[in-house]
Amino acid sequence: MWNDMKDLFAEKMPPYICAPLTGRTEAEVLNQLEKIVPQAPDLIEWRADFFNHLSDAELVGQLVQKIKSTTDIPLLFTIRAEHEGGEKIRLGKEEIVALLADVCAKTDIDLIDYETSNDAASIRSLREIAKENGKKLILSFHDFKNTPESEELLERAKQAEAFGADIAKLAVMPHSKEDVLRLLEVTKTMDDSLEIPVATMSMGELGAISRVIGWAYGSVITFGVGAALSAPGQVPMQKLKKAIQATQELVPGWK
Amino acid sequence: MWNDMKDLFAEKMPPYICAPLTGRTEAEVLNQLEKIVPQAPDLIEWRADFFNHLSDAELVGQLVQKIKSTTDIPLLFTIRAEHEGGEKIRLGKEEIVALLADVCAKTDIDLIDYETSNDAASIRSLREIAKENGKKLILSFHDFKNTPESEELLERAKQAEAFGADIAKLAVMPHSKEDVLRLLEVTKTMDDSLEIPVATMSMGELGAISRVIGWAYGSVITFGVGAALSAPGQVPMQKLKKAIQATQELVPGWK
Repeated sequence: MWNDMKDLFAEKMPPYICAPLTGRTEAEVLNQLEKIVPQAPDLIEWRADFFNHLSDAELVGQLVQKIKSTTDIPLLFTIRAEHEGGEKIRLGKEEIVALLADVCAKTDIDLIDYETSNDAASIRSLREIAKENGKKLILSFHDFKNTPESEELLERAKQAEAFGADIAKLAVMPHSKEDVLRLLEVTKTMDDSLEIPVATMSMGELGAISRVIGWAYGSVITFGVGAALSAPGQVPMQKLKKAIQATQELVPGWK
Repeated sequence: MWNDMKDLFAEKMPPYICAPLTGRTEAEVLNQLEKIVPQAPDLIEWRADFFNHLSDAELVGQLVQKIKSTTDIPLLFTIRAEHEGGEKIRLGKEEIVALLADVCAKTDIDLIDYETSNDAASIRSLREIAKENGKKLILSFHDFKNTPESEELLERAKQAEAFGADIAKLAVMPHSKEDVLRLLEVTKTMDDSLEIPVATMSMGELGAISRVIGWAYGSVITFGVGAALSAPGQVPMQKLKKAIQATQELVPGWK
């Protein structure tokens, strides 16, 4: 699976810098895209829960295709659940699954994201649909209040793997430097014990350092702001890229 | 003590980038100094064990004064013991202690370094002499073959503190990424449990990342190459500074 992932990222090595699109209208999304593309992120995430017309599946599909026709950068489609930090949306659980399935089946999307906190049947169904349509699935877990115990974090990642995720993502909130360092440590444990790649981040101002050095612990994706933040603590993409490159350049034995 | 340290470094916050001088002759030392000073390290270490005329205490003292008259950058005087990675020298244990005492008493040196593996009487004597002359003392431990168990590393640092060190320094060799991350973790533990600042580094190519991100775990000194390496894995000072600054700039909640 990791080999597939490298194909997606044109053999570039991780970490992959992901820029979120958070526009409320098509114009806003395309405007953000225009700002982001020249900054050359490795991945773009359309956080569709910000989109005002999410109930119009056709419009959503068309916008995915418009984005895809603008750039070759892999595109991740996410409707972040409200209880995991997403925007308040009108769609119910079934409609969300249907829309994700639709995007998999009818567009050139590269990856979709879905929370491991959803019911198993929905996760399994989306896993199947993504696979049938050659799309990758990120199964994610977010805690905007705390950094759960390391055992629980590891469990969440294992759960994502058990569901057949292509990438397990965990984003958590620290209350102390210790929480941030612990998240980094457990990332290393996940990376060692899982077959699939992991993407982790410690959020907020305190956690920002995890976005810069998480790759050293095995985190393959880090979010950088190209146009607008989608979660607290995200840092400007160009500066993030510079800091990561400056560090990686010095550590030939590590990459 | 930490306040004294800040005075020494003109209120600049850590990490302090230290460039070693490794010349074998006065001309070589001064030539390296000329290269190093414009790169503005926070600290310069004269690794006097490289110096051919170490048995001539007067010449050594004169060279310290020449260096001090060239620059305001704090100067650290070190005769690294051979069994901790230093050069082979002709001086015996007593002569080393006498030379260090002489440098403390007769020059404007700012700090001296001595290994915690030396006998307690010599350490205590140098601690006194340094204090009497207003010099700082780094007590250090080096393992060029392995990264000892975390408990042992913590013990070594506590030992340095017990002897009255102003800074406890530990430099160890990793065999795996795990060793490097463990050194970082134990650095945090030391920083939390000791009153004095700590300086740690994981050596070799594999350990180089500790030189770049060690500050996040509480390490206050990192060695960068201005003219020549004094230990394996040291990275170019300018690039090191760039990587640290680029990272620190992104993490306001962390510094």
